[in-house]
Amino acid sequence: MGVTLNCDMGESFGLYRIGDDEGLMPIIDVANVACGFHASDPDHMQIAVKSAKANGVKVGSHPGLPDLQGFGRRAMRMSREEVRNSIVYQTGALLGFLRAEGMELHHIKPHGSLYFMAMEQEAVAHGVCDAAEIFGVPLFGMTGTLHEKIYQERGVPFKAEFYADLDYDATGKLILTRVHDAKDPVEMAERCVRAIRDGKGTAEDGSFFPVRCETICVHSDTPNAIEIASAVRDAIAQWH
Amino acid sequence: MGVTLNCDMGESFGLYRIGDDEGLMPIIDVANVACGFHASDPDHMQIAVKSAKANGVKVGSHPGLPDLQGFGRRAMRMSREEVRNSIVYQTGALLGFLRAEGMELHHIKPHGSLYFMAMEQEAVAHGVCDAAEIFGVPLFGMTGTLHEKIYQERGVPFKAEFYADLDYDATGKLILTRVHDAKDPVEMAERCVRAIRDGKGTAEDGSFFPVRCETICVHSDTPNAIEIASAVRDAIAQWH
Amino acid sequence: MGVTLNCDMGESFGLYRIGDDEGLMPIIDVANVACGFHASDPDHMQIAVKSAKANGVKVGSHPGLPDLQGFGRRAMRMSREEVRNSIVYQTGALLGFLRAEGMELHHIKPHGSLYFMAMEQEAVAHGVCDAAEIFGVPLFGMTGTLHEKIYQERGVPFKAEFYADLDYDATGKLILTRVHDAKDPVEMAERCVRAIRDGKGTAEDGSFFPVRCETICVHSDTPNAIEIASAVRDAIAQWH
Amino acid sequence: MGVTLNCDMGESFGLYRIGDDEGLMPIIDVANVACGFHASDPDHMQIAVKSAKANGVKVGSHPGLPDLQGFGRRAMRMSREEVRNSIVYQTGALLGFLRAEGMELHHIKPHGSLYFMAMEQEAVAHGVCDAAEIFGVPLFGMTGTLHEKIYQERGVPFKAEFYADLDYDATGKLILTRVHDAKDPVEMAERCVRAIRDGKGTAEDGSFFPVRCETICVHSDTPNAIEIASAVRDAIAQWH
Repeated sequence: MGVTLNCDMGESFGLYRIGDDEGLMPIIDVANVACGFHASDPDHMQIAVKSAKANGVKVGSHPGLPDLQGFGRRAMRMSREEVRNSIVYQTGALLGFLRAEGMELHHIKPHGSLYFMAMEQEAVAHGVCDAAEIFGVPLFGMTGTLHEKIYQERGVPFKAEFYADLDYDATGKLILTRVHDAKDPVEMAERCVRAIRDGKGTAEDGSFFPVRCETICVHSDTPNAIEIASAVRDAIAQWH
Repeated sequence: MGVTLNCDMGESFGLYRIGDDEGLMPIIDVANVACGFHASDPDHMQIAVKSAKANGVKVGSHPGLPDLQGFGRRAMRMSREEVRNSIVYQTGALLGFLRAEGMELHHIKPHGSLYFMAMEQEAVAHGVCDAAEIFGVPLFGMTGTLHEKIYQERGVPFKAEFYADLDYDATGKLILTRVHDAKDPVEMAERCVRAIRDGKGTAEDGSFFPVRCETICVHSDTPNAIEIASAVRDAIAQWH
Repeated sequence: MGVTLNCDMGESFGLYRIGDDEGLMPIIDVANVACGFHASDPDHMQIAVKSAKANGVKVGSHPGLPDLQGFGRRAMRMSREEVRNSIVYQTGALLGFLRAEGMELHHIKPHGSLYFMAMEQEAVAHGVCDAAEIFGVPLFGMTGTLHEKIYQERGVPFKAEFYADLDYDATGKLILTRVHDAKDPVEMAERCVRAIRDGKGTAEDGSFFPVRCETICVHSDTPNAIEIASAVRDAIAQWH
Repeated sequence: MGVTLNCDMGESFGLYRIGDDEGLMPIIDVANVACGFHASDPDHMQIAVKSAKANGVKVGSHPGLPDLQGFGRRAMRMSREEVRNSIVYQTGALLGFLRAEGMELHHIKPHGSLYFMAMEQEAVAHGVCDAAEIFGVPLFGMTGTLHEKIYQERGVPFKAEFYADLDYDATGKLILTRVHDAKDPVEMAERCVRAIRDGKGTAEDGSFFPVRCETICVHSDTPNAIEIASAVRDAIAQWH
């Protein structure tokens, strides 16, 4: 089985639109659907799940911090229980829409700061695991991090992902920004190939760091997400 | 199978406490657990479901309008799709906590104004049914209403309930208030017996109206909920 | 003093963008700034007020129902006190940003369903007046409605407005929709001229109804808001 | 002018009640009124301000993090601008209710984690100052902290406060807990006297640390807040 392309989807809210989900669905393999805390609402979740089904895209939950204004990108102090319960709640909510479409939950991928917090705080990583065990699905995350270590120690299946539209620093640390900028699709696709084929991540300063990559992530709120996803899609196709 | 006692539970939020769930759980048969829109949050839902399990209480979802400040007791214009999706979301969220405890979803009972709106608006009643069909569970409601008619036309199992701590007008219409007052437990228990045994509801003015009653409801936010629930519990016991 | 052009502004939220405020500010006279309930947040309010000042635009508050997901366009049951307090809260919040820029509050204009509810429910219209009296500013509204009647009986200054980008039915009733569609700028400008010059509103079916117009409203979330605002601006200029 | 007694007030939300505001108002000098982000809503703010006026109590704003579920007691990453704007918004909202009662804003006191964040992050302390300058009122805070240093460097009037119902560690650092426990009123009053008369704070381990105290704080959500406030009130009276 080859490397897949995953994308954060369903992040519109009420009248507010973000991301061209319709354009992205045909390009991707796996959708991480926002669950109403950092973005989305029941109506947009329903649309996202329905569209995923129509496009043969698998659906995982993409739970975030309870901070719509900050789009889940402002770190927040949360206990292990709060992390667990907020992921159980959000993932359960998504299950409702999956059940409506006769689909299965594919994985859980924490969003934004919650994803990062699980790299830095054991309690958060354990809270994420607690939730994943309840649903019996894999977690997406980054190699060489605390969250990978804890997820694996606890025996929760882990999928290593590489980001196609974000920058890394020289130590291989992902740089989280509140707003995503457009990126050069060709360069981003090359970085992905380098990650898959050579196990090398490319840092902001041009240096390399070791990386493992089973799935590639693109964000729907990156301005030229479709161009990036298409370029990466084509690049990945060579390695399937 | 006799008449059961159901109670709206898990309605605390963050540091805010409402209802003596611990005291009520041993008395009731069925808990309608709030799902985070009109009340509750992931942490209180987890506590409520865990406590229900420990007390052998069945759990249904108690979805409400997205209005925490109004406790779901302010009517709101919602389309059929919005009703459906908001119930799917909330009930799904509850499923997550049920799965964690190895429990099944027992029923769906809309909360407050959503329950009332389904008595007056076809679109709302249909939205409620749409959601119930997805989860394959019965709906709780009131006899002689539009919502009973629509639920039954669509073949969704229906459980008729009688309210032990609210007043009815002479036409048998339930009187919705934002805040619940204490009631006389003895009188309330008598009303319940009259409803179960004689099929007679007791109106505010002392007159009677025809009623069918398969389950009795008490609200946890009624000030003397435990006294009422206990009196009703004892009264029901005679008819099992 | 001639007819002014007012526009609902500052309706973005967090990462979500709606309306081209930057493009509209130079065209309009008066901004109705959203106050965080139906749309906006403190950061977008600050930007909107600052931009209004830079463009010499006057600022009124644009308080809405506490329903971000519904963009304040889902009617909601509110008591007179709730209406009053929610407007005092939102308008006060705006005062903070006006004070930061050394500006005065110009008026209050309720948003969406709150605006409509004040046409149909006396309690709501009185709640709006209660708030306006506290701040000592005029209210914007529609002629021939219950809200005009109540505002004027209570002696609160009233500015009659005509909508440049919404449809009216044959009785002169504004048609509220959740999402605004693009409109033909030339036709809309003609309707405005007819309203100002002839006191005639144009209904959806082409018939006319009597109307008084002291200010024209354009919505920033109408897709071609800038084209409409510019056309109306030019049309109004002839009558100053 | 003597040492005053201040109390966090108006923290109920919708149907949820927290704190015995009615019992506390006659005992205190100054109310820090919650502004709807960590607690309270427009209706409870209106009640709190009205009650303060009736009791001759001065009113300051008590802005918190946008986290009702966490009661503003979960630290959150916020930029200087976000801190500034969220305080301007909340304090402005309070101004609306003060204006309704013909009262003036007395001070600003950040709530919970926001108060603590301003002790540890320069950007937060500056954001707080930015807001205080707009309203031209003093800030409440703790001596010997980063926030005192920054507030004073910027020339914003500062009132040093001592907590009557929280514990301090041996270094004089306040211990923030999500839920407040009952405390012994006599002991707490003694600690306050020691702080006022001797400039000595009492740590959890019984040791002392230097402290300056111009105002004493009691929390309305401490279970026996009225007993503590009364005991402290009597103790302070000796030093006026």
